[in-house]
Amino acid sequence: MAEKRQKEGDGGQGKLWGGRFGEKTDPRVDRFNASVSFDQRLALEDVAGNLAHGRMLHRIGLLDDQEWSRLEAGLKSIGERIKAGRFTFREEDEDVHLNIEAALTAEIGPAGAKLHTGRSRNDQVATDLRLFLRSGIDRVLASLRRLREVLVDLAQEHLETILPGYTHLQRAQPVRLALHLLAYQEMIRRDEERFAQARGRTNLSPLGAAALAGTTFPVDREGTARELGFDGLAENSIDAVSDRDFCLDFLHAASVLMVHLSRLAEELVLWSSQEFGFIDLADAFTTGSSIMPQKKNPDVAELIRGKTGRVFGHQMALLTVLKGLPLAYNKDLQEDKEPVFDTLDTILEILGLLPDMLASMRVNREVMRRACLKGFLEATDLADWLAGRGVPFREAHHQVGALVKHCLKEGRSIPELSLEEIKRFCPLAQEEIFGHLELERVVDRRASQGGTARVEVERMIRRAKEDLSRAGAK
Amino acid sequence: MAEKRQKEGDGGQGKLWGGRFGEKTDPRVDRFNASVSFDQRLALEDVAGNLAHGRMLHRIGLLDDQEWSRLEAGLKSIGERIKAGRFTFREEDEDVHLNIEAALTAEIGPAGAKLHTGRSRNDQVATDLRLFLRSGIDRVLASLRRLREVLVDLAQEHLETILPGYTHLQRAQPVRLALHLLAYQEMIRRDEERFAQARGRTNLSPLGAAALAGTTFPVDREGTARELGFDGLAENSIDAVSDRDFCLDFLHAASVLMVHLSRLAEELVLWSSQEFGFIDLADAFTTGSSIMPQKKNPDVAELIRGKTGRVFGHQMALLTVLKGLPLAYNKDLQEDKEPVFDTLDTILEILGLLPDMLASMRVNREVMRRACLKGFLEATDLADWLAGRGVPFREAHHQVGALVKHCLKEGRSIPELSLEEIKRFCPLAQEEIFGHLELERVVDRRASQGGTARVEVERMIRRAKEDLSRAGAK
Amino acid sequence: MAEKRQKEGDGGQGKLWGGRFGEKTDPRVDRFNASVSFDQRLALEDVAGNLAHGRMLHRIGLLDDQEWSRLEAGLKSIGERIKAGRFTFREEDEDVHLNIEAALTAEIGPAGAKLHTGRSRNDQVATDLRLFLRSGIDRVLASLRRLREVLVDLAQEHLETILPGYTHLQRAQPVRLALHLLAYQEMIRRDEERFAQARGRTNLSPLGAAALAGTTFPVDREGTARELGFDGLAENSIDAVSDRDFCLDFLHAASVLMVHLSRLAEELVLWSSQEFGFIDLADAFTTGSSIMPQKKNPDVAELIRGKTGRVFGHQMALLTVLKGLPLAYNKDLQEDKEPVFDTLDTILEILGLLPDMLASMRVNREVMRRACLKGFLEATDLADWLAGRGVPFREAHHQVGALVKHCLKEGRSIPELSLEEIKRFCPLAQEEIFGHLELERVVDRRASQGGTARVEVERMIRRAKEDLSRAGAK
Amino acid sequence: MAEKRQKEGDGGQGKLWGGRFGEKTDPRVDRFNASVSFDQRLALEDVAGNLAHGRMLHRIGLLDDQEWSRLEAGLKSIGERIKAGRFTFREEDEDVHLNIEAALTAEIGPAGAKLHTGRSRNDQVATDLRLFLRSGIDRVLASLRRLREVLVDLAQEHLETILPGYTHLQRAQPVRLALHLLAYQEMIRRDEERFAQARGRTNLSPLGAAALAGTTFPVDREGTARELGFDGLAENSIDAVSDRDFCLDFLHAASVLMVHLSRLAEELVLWSSQEFGFIDLADAFTTGSSIMPQKKNPDVAELIRGKTGRVFGHQMALLTVLKGLPLAYNKDLQEDKEPVFDTLDTILEILGLLPDMLASMRVNREVMRRACLKGFLEATDLADWLAGRGVPFREAHHQVGALVKHCLKEGRSIPELSLEEIKRFCPLAQEEIFGHLELERVVDRRASQGGTARVEVERMIRRAKEDLSRAGAK
Repeated sequence: MAEKRQKEGDGGQGKLWGGRFGEKTDPRVDRFNASVSFDQRLALEDVAGNLAHGRMLHRIGLLDDQEWSRLEAGLKSIGERIKAGRFTFREEDEDVHLNIEAALTAEIGPAGAKLHTGRSRNDQVATDLRLFLRSGIDRVLASLRRLREVLVDLAQEHLETILPGYTHLQRAQPVRLALHLLAYQEMIRRDEERFAQARGRTNLSPLGAAALAGTTFPVDREGTARELGFDGLAENSIDAVSDRDFCLDFLHAASVLMVHLSRLAEELVLWSSQEFGFIDLADAFTTGSSIMPQKKNPDVAELIRGKTGRVFGHQMALLTVLKGLPLAYNKDLQEDKEPVFDTLDTILEILGLLPDMLASMRVNREVMRRACLKGFLEATDLADWLAGRGVPFREAHHQVGALVKHCLKEGRSIPELSLEEIKRFCPLAQEEIFGHLELERVVDRRASQGGTARVEVERMIRRAKEDLSRAGAK
Repeated sequence: MAEKRQKEGDGGQGKLWGGRFGEKTDPRVDRFNASVSFDQRLALEDVAGNLAHGRMLHRIGLLDDQEWSRLEAGLKSIGERIKAGRFTFREEDEDVHLNIEAALTAEIGPAGAKLHTGRSRNDQVATDLRLFLRSGIDRVLASLRRLREVLVDLAQEHLETILPGYTHLQRAQPVRLALHLLAYQEMIRRDEERFAQARGRTNLSPLGAAALAGTTFPVDREGTARELGFDGLAENSIDAVSDRDFCLDFLHAASVLMVHLSRLAEELVLWSSQEFGFIDLADAFTTGSSIMPQKKNPDVAELIRGKTGRVFGHQMALLTVLKGLPLAYNKDLQEDKEPVFDTLDTILEILGLLPDMLASMRVNREVMRRACLKGFLEATDLADWLAGRGVPFREAHHQVGALVKHCLKEGRSIPELSLEEIKRFCPLAQEEIFGHLELERVVDRRASQGGTARVEVERMIRRAKEDLSRAGAK
Repeated sequence: MAEKRQKEGDGGQGKLWGGRFGEKTDPRVDRFNASVSFDQRLALEDVAGNLAHGRMLHRIGLLDDQEWSRLEAGLKSIGERIKAGRFTFREEDEDVHLNIEAALTAEIGPAGAKLHTGRSRNDQVATDLRLFLRSGIDRVLASLRRLREVLVDLAQEHLETILPGYTHLQRAQPVRLALHLLAYQEMIRRDEERFAQARGRTNLSPLGAAALAGTTFPVDREGTARELGFDGLAENSIDAVSDRDFCLDFLHAASVLMVHLSRLAEELVLWSSQEFGFIDLADAFTTGSSIMPQKKNPDVAELIRGKTGRVFGHQMALLTVLKGLPLAYNKDLQEDKEPVFDTLDTILEILGLLPDMLASMRVNREVMRRACLKGFLEATDLADWLAGRGVPFREAHHQVGALVKHCLKEGRSIPELSLEEIKRFCPLAQEEIFGHLELERVVDRRASQGGTARVEVERMIRRAKEDLSRAGAK
Repeated sequence: MAEKRQKEGDGGQGKLWGGRFGEKTDPRVDRFNASVSFDQRLALEDVAGNLAHGRMLHRIGLLDDQEWSRLEAGLKSIGERIKAGRFTFREEDEDVHLNIEAALTAEIGPAGAKLHTGRSRNDQVATDLRLFLRSGIDRVLASLRRLREVLVDLAQEHLETILPGYTHLQRAQPVRLALHLLAYQEMIRRDEERFAQARGRTNLSPLGAAALAGTTFPVDREGTARELGFDGLAENSIDAVSDRDFCLDFLHAASVLMVHLSRLAEELVLWSSQEFGFIDLADAFTTGSSIMPQKKNPDVAELIRGKTGRVFGHQMALLTVLKGLPLAYNKDLQEDKEPVFDTLDTILEILGLLPDMLASMRVNREVMRRACLKGFLEATDLADWLAGRGVPFREAHHQVGALVKHCLKEGRSIPELSLEEIKRFCPLAQEEIFGHLELERVVDRRASQGGTARVEVERMIRRAKEDLSRAGAK
């Protein structure tokens, strides 16, 4: 993006800025500098910005009625062509702004150029990108909400499903699957907050900052900001054209989201392995192998995990671009768009798939339950029970540890042992421990706030639903 | 960080979890796993967390009066020793938590271990780290505010200083130095917002989530949260022990801050070069050369710019750690602390230096002004003036471009030419253009909101001061 | 990338692997999994790999003469269509391999499928990517050589051009521009070495590793490797399908290259600023501003600097993808291609432009020389001269430092002072120092190996030319 | 790092470069600039460099016999103190070079300063860092070799152990564990190559480049290079002081190594989960839980995986530092050391542990074998067998797919079915298929070069041993 504008109607051969130049631009340079291959995605935003700017110029008297009505008609017609996919972008016209300007001039004559009074491409491109990203974030927010709803519905459905909770990927303590799913719901809720905060810093209008110092024309910046739905101004004109914080904020929110999704994806891959067998992903969300008839591959989950890389990479890319740039606008900033576009596409595509993949998976409750029973997950509670009977905790822990070692050697689980056998390791054990160690009782005993007991999980589901319905009512 | 606790009073030789183990830990493993060399920075937070947890246990009846009063005294005494630098951390005790527990047990006997009722190291370390980071962010916020104040004071002082505004590092249009400095003030204001939002997600209590599933004891999570100054709970117990979003949010805020500081540092380096000569950094903030007597090096600015690398690197490091980790706690999470600590130290050190370096630099107003006069910065306004006299803008731009080319060849600036000479390129030029092109008039003509005109810059300074004094009153 | 192959002739509706599946794939999943939008760039490599594999199958008797001659004709015809841009890739056919297979089957009937005997897509895609990258690296190597030639030619041309050498962006000691340009030549020479080493690890054949365990058919791996120009095998079948080190090596070489190019670009931006004025980039390699008639922007150099971000980002992206993946093939690996493609395009485009931009720039020798004279660059030599007359170096340094301070205050340079004035600071100074401090003599005095003296720089130019002509002769 | 040297004998209060300075350095600036807290690790290399430089100065007559013998004695004495840990580094002396210089001057008087003839800290620090890294890389190379030996020994031991090979973390085809382990051996072999190449670019001497332009003294650069064991010169003086490619090469090699180790660590974590149960890590390499008596956590493997983050982060950090720096030396370069040091420590510590952890783990052959039998891993071979009997492969694949579906529903494996049952899905099946599908026969059938057949795996083990013994003989 530069401040250059191309000569009207001469097919890009001449440049408006030829005065001090003696030589033509090298065609490779034109190609290298051109951004229209990717910034054409800003076309509708560019038209919207043009309309708001033109209407304001008309309001303050810099365009007369006739000029404005021709401009408006021309821009709207261009907007229609863009929407219909009938607008041809040409590399000779360098970027989306000049493409639209050229089309406008072709449509309504040289008056089209008056639209650029009091504006530069430096504030124009920042305006377009902010408008684009704002609507992108809004789509992300809607998708995140849908994902939370699915997670909460699944949690409701799996209130009674108990699986091993893991630490260090070792079975640790039994938990309700609902609690596990609600953990992801919490992460996504934070993601919503993070994207909403990124939106706040995105939705400010740089329009009117011009090249870097403001403009000599009495433009109404508040007016155009309002018309374009901005919450306020990126006021300082130097900051307005050089600030890309809002892109970094978006990329950060996306990176953290990908951390969460990669963790979930990893669990889906693990859980659908033959070793875990906790879930079966629906056929519609897996693929097979042309060679190995038995294969059913969790491609989608793997690819979600893999796409984490590109989002992290985009964040690092833009940080690198911005490091050490002097004020105000530098051409380096043209590198801001592709990371943002690709990140947005990536997370929207994933969020479009994931809720249905989750909703359609089959949960193998019995397998999960069996994994609990074989995992000695009641060991903590047995040690606690002994401690409650006066065995010093350290000693109780040691007794149960030895009992587990014995079970491992025999290939049996604690409830499968007789009381006598247990007593060889834990002399104070009594018959009641078998009831004490039943899975549901173990789970429900953890009734601290936010814990895995039924009463707590139910409360958290209720609260999440209220939260979601409140958000929906907005 | 694991859920392990070490045997009371046996000097770390034995482990509490020996029951199912037949072999001793390899000493290299102990060293590899140990975190006390760095997590000892959480010592005071650990004591505070212990106190809050103990007081709560006493309140709900799990500690009797005597136990609690001994515990409290022991912890306070340990806290004093830590503050006084008289607490010796031992690697054999693996981490800060076990070091403090060992000291407590040594001080008050085995009752010290009762403190761990209803808690695990998984929620304990998360609590400590959040407390630590919260206070770190508060220090950052105070430092950022101080930096903004200095920037606003400098802007006030340099309301009348005019320098070339640059795009593409080419002189573009003259701007008030005040506007330029206020652009940085805007960035830092956004940084404040970003750190404050990171603080919001940091300041939630995971205490009581225990290992991952909650605890069987009737702990009062709201109570401990309140006592520790948390705004609320990290409620879901699985999420509470596995969430490190708050660290990522902090590292992001720090990375964006470093983007801003690296841009400022780059300008300080450029401006203090012999070529620019815009500023002289104070001797106190530069260094010389033992070989080259003429050298005066902007080391501090360079090092600020260079330290951007480590902060970006830390962000990438933690993102990498978290990618694809299954729930809940994994040992990988132990890698969360060092990036946070080093980032915090780095930005606090920089923010401690930078305001004084800025306040003490000498601004060479005349050099800046001369750079404007030689930079053809009035060219835009001359073209505009011609356009206002009816020359089509494209033609006006071309005339002025040719005039600039002529000046470059002659090594002169536009105001140094005679009217006749100018008319050879711009036939409609008149005597009044010389006044029209005076620097102050060029600058003040850009009076759009946020622009470089005096009235606008004054207004922005006023608003920034009000904003700062409001913030100060809080 | 999976092991899936699509049903012959049914337009992608059915899948070959339907046996154990009850449900159709969700169309969004097909889209999400599809890679043909980007991996179609491997089309010619895929055809080449198919030809080599088919010829080998024929050689070992798994294809009869007629089958092979039909396959060969079909593949060659497809290759022609691809080269001519007349091959239509269809997303329903998922990836480049299935697209070509489908076209082959359409062309020569179901016999086309026999080509896949003893092969899987896992080894096929790795083969294609290695072939593609090998030829990409060869193009990079040729471009780097051209850049070195231009640098050496420029060095030859500017043997007598003297500019300030900088440390800390402060003028330090005068150097020949040739030495400075040769420093970049050294960097690019190392880049060549690095790319050549990356090529070495790239150019190994995975073909025949099949899905992950090798194949039951008696394929001739050495034979296909030889035919495809590979230097050897990626032998271990599990490693062969899961290794992407060669991509990381390429991305690293590209990142280091971008470090070098960004440093050069930064200097081009600085040097073409009005403040430095050391060079004028040719009009053909700069752009103007439609608003500011005086502007001449070094867009190309800025964009080179900016594109550093995307290359670093791609490296980080692929590292993230690979972190923690269990063996062997995982779908995550599909994310390997886009970073490689975009990095290759980026550096080839830059390397296509840069030599001509350098060759066409105008070097302002007089400006550079003046910068030396005003920069007190003879200060070191004056101190050395005094030290040679018996003044302790520390004292000599101090005297010259004070002299510089005096000059700064007066706005003069040392050679502009009279001997008397100099003696006020350096009592032992004599008339001969004026000769001693002449620029050429200062420069030539640094005659240590690799230093800036004429004799050394000439020698290094000679050696670089010999090196380049040797390389060219290969 | 600057060119500054501190005043002799004045305890760091004054600076040698005071001549043009009027003000004292701010103490915070001294602290900020100081690097001795980390660069003291270069102390022995600094002494070695000093000795080589001094000996050369003596050889060319710039030090007389007495000066040299005093210097040599002083330096050797300092070296002894450093080795014995009796050398105190002081922050006031800024960096390791000035600390050693100050000690030398304290020891032998002002003659110590003559050592700095023809040298600057710019070439000195580059020399030290290259020496340090060279020896670091040598230690890494030795550790990598040990890891390869353990992998090959394990492969030999597990030639007959068969486990499921996975793609998409789904059981795919049975493979010998030896083949799987040899895949890691291949990765580490490439790592060796990569580190050796990094060593090649590291082991070049910058000594004698001085500040940036060479020196006026007739130093013998080849001589000092030879004495210090360098392979050659970093000749160009500007390049020599500004090049940090060798650090990037090392960080890259380390990052790729961490990719490999994180993949292995991930598998160790998975395999030691209760779900897989493929291995038991030795008690000495795992930890327990103080709360959950049944836990045995693979902390070491997790931490290896987690430490991948810091290494990637360091690479990104240094890339960021170097991006866009103009030549030659800039203070930013001081940020080169910590990433290199921490990366070296990290990988050496891991490589110190890992071989023993691997050698001491217990492999549960029967569990692995059972996983093969239950995984339908013979499905491919059954389809192939049917295809060999004339069933079109697509049809054979479909039949076997349906058979697998049936088995899944029944919870049985193919070999557990009767021939009649199998024939319901695969009408051409015959009794011989039961033999055909035996695990060893399935595995040995994949006898293509590099495949999992016994003969191939044995050959690869043999070759790896020869390769290692050849390397050992060097």
